[in-house]
Amino acid sequence: MIALTTNNLQKLESVPSIANIQHVHEAIAPYIHRTPILTCESINAIAGAELYFKCENFQKIGAFKMRGATSAALALSEAEIGKGLATHSSGNHAQAVALTAKNLGTKAYIVMPSNSPAVKKKAVAGYGAEITFCEPTQAAREATMAEIVAETGATFIHPYDDYNVITGQATCAKEVFEDCPILDAIIAPIGGGGLMSGTALSAKYFSPMTKIYGGEPEIVNDAYRSLQSGQLQQNTTTDTIADGLKTNLSDKTFGIIQEHLEEIILVNETEIADAMRLIWERMKIIIEPSCAVPLAAILKHPAPFSQRKVGLILTGGNVDLEKLPFTKH
Amino acid sequence: MIALTTNNLQKLESVPSIANIQHVHEAIAPYIHRTPILTCESINAIAGAELYFKCENFQKIGAFKMRGATSAALALSEAEIGKGLATHSSGNHAQAVALTAKNLGTKAYIVMPSNSPAVKKKAVAGYGAEITFCEPTQAAREATMAEIVAETGATFIHPYDDYNVITGQATCAKEVFEDCPILDAIIAPIGGGGLMSGTALSAKYFSPMTKIYGGEPEIVNDAYRSLQSGQLQQNTTTDTIADGLKTNLSDKTFGIIQEHLEEIILVNETEIADAMRLIWERMKIIIEPSCAVPLAAILKHPAPFSQRKVGLILTGGNVDLEKLPFTKH
Repeated sequence: MIALTTNNLQKLESVPSIANIQHVHEAIAPYIHRTPILTCESINAIAGAELYFKCENFQKIGAFKMRGATSAALALSEAEIGKGLATHSSGNHAQAVALTAKNLGTKAYIVMPSNSPAVKKKAVAGYGAEITFCEPTQAAREATMAEIVAETGATFIHPYDDYNVITGQATCAKEVFEDCPILDAIIAPIGGGGLMSGTALSAKYFSPMTKIYGGEPEIVNDAYRSLQSGQLQQNTTTDTIADGLKTNLSDKTFGIIQEHLEEIILVNETEIADAMRLIWERMKIIIEPSCAVPLAAILKHPAPFSQRKVGLILTGGNVDLEKLPFTKH
Repeated sequence: MIALTTNNLQKLESVPSIANIQHVHEAIAPYIHRTPILTCESINAIAGAELYFKCENFQKIGAFKMRGATSAALALSEAEIGKGLATHSSGNHAQAVALTAKNLGTKAYIVMPSNSPAVKKKAVAGYGAEITFCEPTQAAREATMAEIVAETGATFIHPYDDYNVITGQATCAKEVFEDCPILDAIIAPIGGGGLMSGTALSAKYFSPMTKIYGGEPEIVNDAYRSLQSGQLQQNTTTDTIADGLKTNLSDKTFGIIQEHLEEIILVNETEIADAMRLIWERMKIIIEPSCAVPLAAILKHPAPFSQRKVGLILTGGNVDLEKLPFTKH
């Protein structure tokens, strides 16, 4: 039996339905921005395609993660919310949980890897969250988190292996399909797969003719290898400038991605930095390296996108201005 | 007698009227973007004011200069346009004249100081203009320009000492007053004064209750000293990161500024860099140092703006990403 909470959102135990996504979108609307979709003639000319950039860099906390965190928190009971929200994250999900806790009048307990960008650490602290730093490994994150949850009774909100989070992230592509002409394709970057799987579900439900692509850095290509092998794979390094994409797919996100994705396109570090620079210079907007991956993928592998209408999700804008990949040192 | 050209815009010999600005706005509309006005809650909280940022960084060529260049070119005869457009500029006006020439199917001859930002040189070349580099002094610019005009018969479009250019720049603030709630104040940066004087005229005509402020870098404070002394002053150095503001007021711009400005607020280089960084980090948009000057001025001298609705013109986004004032070297 699925419990209905005071917020009328369900704790989801299976892949979200179209109704789940619609319901979550209404519920989280007061807590998120409806972000604009921008176009850029000169990048269209370079790409040979008609690109629609969904600007989640202008989202609350500067990234789409606000959608999933709010979605997950609103499915909790009042008693659960009262004990606080907790998570481990390299940054944007941490900020999202911190601001969500603040919005709901409760505490946030955040475990962050010690090498997170300074701008992200500062922002999490700015929302009043209690931060615990750990070594930058998945194991250290999880162990530290488990201790904090045991001590405080706070509810852990996973960055992506959670159907409520996936449903929240799906609202981003839902907005793209509401605001854009019919898209031939949509592409998102893949880290843990929360955004990618949400994007895939919204495409399936709201625009079934749209083909679904993912972009992934070559050196953290667990999703690519997972699709190839049919088995969930792990990254062996995390040394990418796309700091939001270092995480591994989970069972939940892999299942959805495996079912719906056309293809995952791999890009190297130079291609990511070049695409990031192109967006900065031509569009005059700040995006973090992770969200340059879809444009890098289109430029590297243009065939499926040639002369097509393509939606790209620019996932966030929280970049450390003192460490830019295109500044001479 | 004022000649009417084929484009039905007049060559203006005196301070533009409200009808001139309205007419120019209609005429240039096909060549410019109607840029958005953005707000940012967290910067409002820091400033203690309600700020409306007019995003000319999203304008064609990445700066408001497209307005003035188009306005001036559309007042030329077909014969004049046929011989080409010419100018000297540290960058944005050069790009604007280059793209305007391209739009009108004619040649552009551009004199640029050799120390112009690489991104601006590249962009001018990208519009197909013929570039001549010169020493970075006003005298060298003018001498080189005179030679080229004598050789080609092209029409020189001054970056600001031209009532048709000022009228074009005035359309920017006109849009601000059309799109915003009633503003208590409006502030623009001051270089040669084309934007500032256009902004002052639009405020006078379209929102007479709005007080008009200018922001200027301390180390190129010719406008501040000109207002203080009542006589046109010259800069003695040009060593500011606000590379768009190195030029001196002219007779035409000084006359308008002297009549309408409430006050010019001076800011130092650190204050400019800090305000620029604040806009980059909080608003996730790319602005060049010159247009951080108004926010820097509000933060330095908050009294006249406290709890007021204030329009700020973000003049452009053409910044050399390899030379950012807040990147560690």
